[in-house]
Amino acid sequence: MKQLPFHVLRLGYRKGRDPRITTHLALVSRALGATHFHLNGDEDPELFENVNSVNERFGGEMECSHIDSALGWLKKFSQHDAGDGAPGVAIHLTMYGEPYRQVLPQIRRDRPVVLIAGGAKVPGDVFKLSHYNLAVGNQPHSEVAALALFMDAWFGDGGSPTHFDGAVLKIEPSPNGKIVHDSQSKNK
Amino acid sequence: MKQLPFHVLRLGYRKGRDPRITTHLALVSRALGATHFHLNGDEDPELFENVNSVNERFGGEMECSHIDSALGWLKKFSQHDAGDGAPGVAIHLTMYGEPYRQVLPQIRRDRPVVLIAGGAKVPGDVFKLSHYNLAVGNQPHSEVAALALFMDAWFGDGGSPTHFDGAVLKIEPSPNGKIVHDSQSKNK
Repeated sequence: MKQLPFHVLRLGYRKGRDPRITTHLALVSRALGATHFHLNGDEDPELFENVNSVNERFGGEMECSHIDSALGWLKKFSQHDAGDGAPGVAIHLTMYGEPYRQVLPQIRRDRPVVLIAGGAKVPGDVFKLSHYNLAVGNQPHSEVAALALFMDAWFGDGGSPTHFDGAVLKIEPSPNGKIVHDSQSKNK
Repeated sequence: MKQLPFHVLRLGYRKGRDPRITTHLALVSRALGATHFHLNGDEDPELFENVNSVNERFGGEMECSHIDSALGWLKKFSQHDAGDGAPGVAIHLTMYGEPYRQVLPQIRRDRPVVLIAGGAKVPGDVFKLSHYNLAVGNQPHSEVAALALFMDAWFGDGGSPTHFDGAVLKIEPSPNGKIVHDSQSKNK
């Protein structure tokens, strides 16, 4: 069965301030199973190149794109067209939301999902346009951690060893050191 | 039962490059149940002030400290004295390690723990001085995500709503907005 699209939308990116946090968001999205990563706010081709470089080395094909109007995009996705002509499910991660573990079983799993990772100031409309406003704990911590914990719960076991199609580098789990298999170096 | 000490050690902090990632590490440590956060590398009183400010507003008492010699500290903790005269358990999070979910049930739970979150370049001795080298997935992603997923698995349910002792601000979970209770504003 083909995986349904799983989108992550990062709101309000500020290139001068958030590049590493946002790179972490993108890499967590990729590692834990997202198919699309959307950046709203400043444009940053270099950030996308970093993610694509990880795709090239470690496989996989998560697509990155920039979105000018996050609210317009979100309204279309959640109310009209998630890419196949029907609405998708919009889930906003916020420390003010309901406990994610309690609500997660209520969420339908037969539609594309967008997970919204907040930025500096989240517009109130994001709360309204999202079908779910969910908190990963009600303590201030990290949107990277919230994304990881939600995706792990959603996919069941996000932190397990995974190899993506097309990987050049594969890491072999080891109790005491670094073991990396490089398929290209073997061909030389 | 008093909680056993749970330490998080951040290696190789670079003040000019990592402040937000490291702040996220500290806040995730606090939110998910650590008692101590140790910073190795550059000193950064401002970062500690940020964490202490969260303690003051949201309660809790995770202590922050700077460590000059991470290897010396780790050797003492893991081989001799975790603070009570006996060795503690040292767990190093690394993408090269063994799958954390498989190994976690083997780890003893009657001793203080230190969780080591890597930095830019992790010295080989960290692999040797750690009792466990564990991977949260073998894909490159984020030490913040790895810390969160490990701590969530360790404590069973790290992402549930929690209020710490001494909290001034308490967030009330809500499906559609922000509800914050401020105990100080009520007293005025």
